[in-house]
Amino acid sequence: MRNLALTVSFDGTNYAGFQIQKNGKTVQEVLEAALRKILKEKVRILAAGRTDAGVHALAQVVTVKTSSEIPTEALKRALNSNIPPDIAVQQVKKVPLSFHPRYEAISKRYRYTIRNHPSRSPFDRLYTTFYPYPLDLSAMRRAARFLMGRRDYQSFQAKDKKRRSSTRHIRHLSIRKKSPYVVLEIEGDGFLYKMVRNIVGTLLEVGRGKWRPADVKGILSKKDRSLAGPTAPARGLCLLSVRYLS
Amino acid sequence: MRNLALTVSFDGTNYAGFQIQKNGKTVQEVLEAALRKILKEKVRILAAGRTDAGVHALAQVVTVKTSSEIPTEALKRALNSNIPPDIAVQQVKKVPLSFHPRYEAISKRYRYTIRNHPSRSPFDRLYTTFYPYPLDLSAMRRAARFLMGRRDYQSFQAKDKKRRSSTRHIRHLSIRKKSPYVVLEIEGDGFLYKMVRNIVGTLLEVGRGKWRPADVKGILSKKDRSLAGPTAPARGLCLLSVRYLS
Repeated sequence: MRNLALTVSFDGTNYAGFQIQKNGKTVQEVLEAALRKILKEKVRILAAGRTDAGVHALAQVVTVKTSSEIPTEALKRALNSNIPPDIAVQQVKKVPLSFHPRYEAISKRYRYTIRNHPSRSPFDRLYTTFYPYPLDLSAMRRAARFLMGRRDYQSFQAKDKKRRSSTRHIRHLSIRKKSPYVVLEIEGDGFLYKMVRNIVGTLLEVGRGKWRPADVKGILSKKDRSLAGPTAPARGLCLLSVRYLS
Repeated sequence: MRNLALTVSFDGTNYAGFQIQKNGKTVQEVLEAALRKILKEKVRILAAGRTDAGVHALAQVVTVKTSSEIPTEALKRALNSNIPPDIAVQQVKKVPLSFHPRYEAISKRYRYTIRNHPSRSPFDRLYTTFYPYPLDLSAMRRAARFLMGRRDYQSFQAKDKKRRSSTRHIRHLSIRKKSPYVVLEIEGDGFLYKMVRNIVGTLLEVGRGKWRPADVKGILSKKDRSLAGPTAPARGLCLLSVRYLS
């Protein structure tokens, strides 16, 4: 028995998210169907993280246990021939049997891309959120400083029935102008449900002048989702990478 | 009566080309439907060029004559609200009544983008052609030199029943490495049916070593389409710009 880690990119536009669910096609079920066909085994994959409907990934990490002896390069090629072009397997490598892609992840990094230009473009419509109005990036960066470090991010969490801890450690949160885009990158040891998109929605409210940077400090401390900004659209979000020790 | 020139970008993936035809939705019919709705007139547009099914445009130029007095900026906004996100009107401006977008074009410039990397990417799949094998760019550039200047490009033309002149003037043909892409740009006073894609298909045969650069000189001189390379896929092609005097 081997445990294989796959690095997978996908365009989430046409998927109801990563994880298998009743309504709509998911990336997980497409990958598992291809793996079963190639490995001739009933397999289940584990993933570093779920992504919501419409969210993309540059390097999601998933693992599959198999008794097949197919070489990793051959498996990669066979997978890419058996999945649609909006999903691509970038790498397949052997990992210890005990390796779990979610439990062993040290951090995840997401990118959120905003098209900040008066005109839309047909070519980035699937991967960016269109925001044609001026944004005060300096104010957004000052607000972002309140959202870093080890904090309780309950105000930025979509409802969680299980009432688990909402403390997370955000190690990095940058806002860069790459004309015509504004690119946010955020890295942390974990993220609550819709947390990245709620943070982006809140920073956009600061950027357009509705709130001052210091207001974000108050929103964070009150632990009330209704105080934060709206959830930014899924299409601008991409899971960039997952980090592991070694 | 005014004559208005529209600069239009579109993702051609979901269209059966620019020009109205019986089979499939076209960019022209989407634009005309929106114009009729907004201008409340039966209008027909003229375009700088046809593009085939699946081909994209960054700046196609079309004109429409109207007796409506709507300001150009208001028309641009109204159009963008009435067309799907895979088409965008970038500019609307008044031009002389006699201006014809095709007859007065001095040159057109196309870009062809090849993803030249061992792995596919889900994010450029609609706008590039995937070619995972090594390409000898230096040989392609030497071959390209035979395809510049004022020449008879009959060998690179899809069948034309009307037997019009197949002489065209190619002013520019560059091949650049922009890793992981190879980008070809070609500008000329006009192009025969599928000529750009046939040139790209031929240069790829040189790049992979099937033909020597000098073979392209022979292909050109024999004026026989069957000697040139295959037609490269539509998805890699984009009409970049149309040039006019003034």
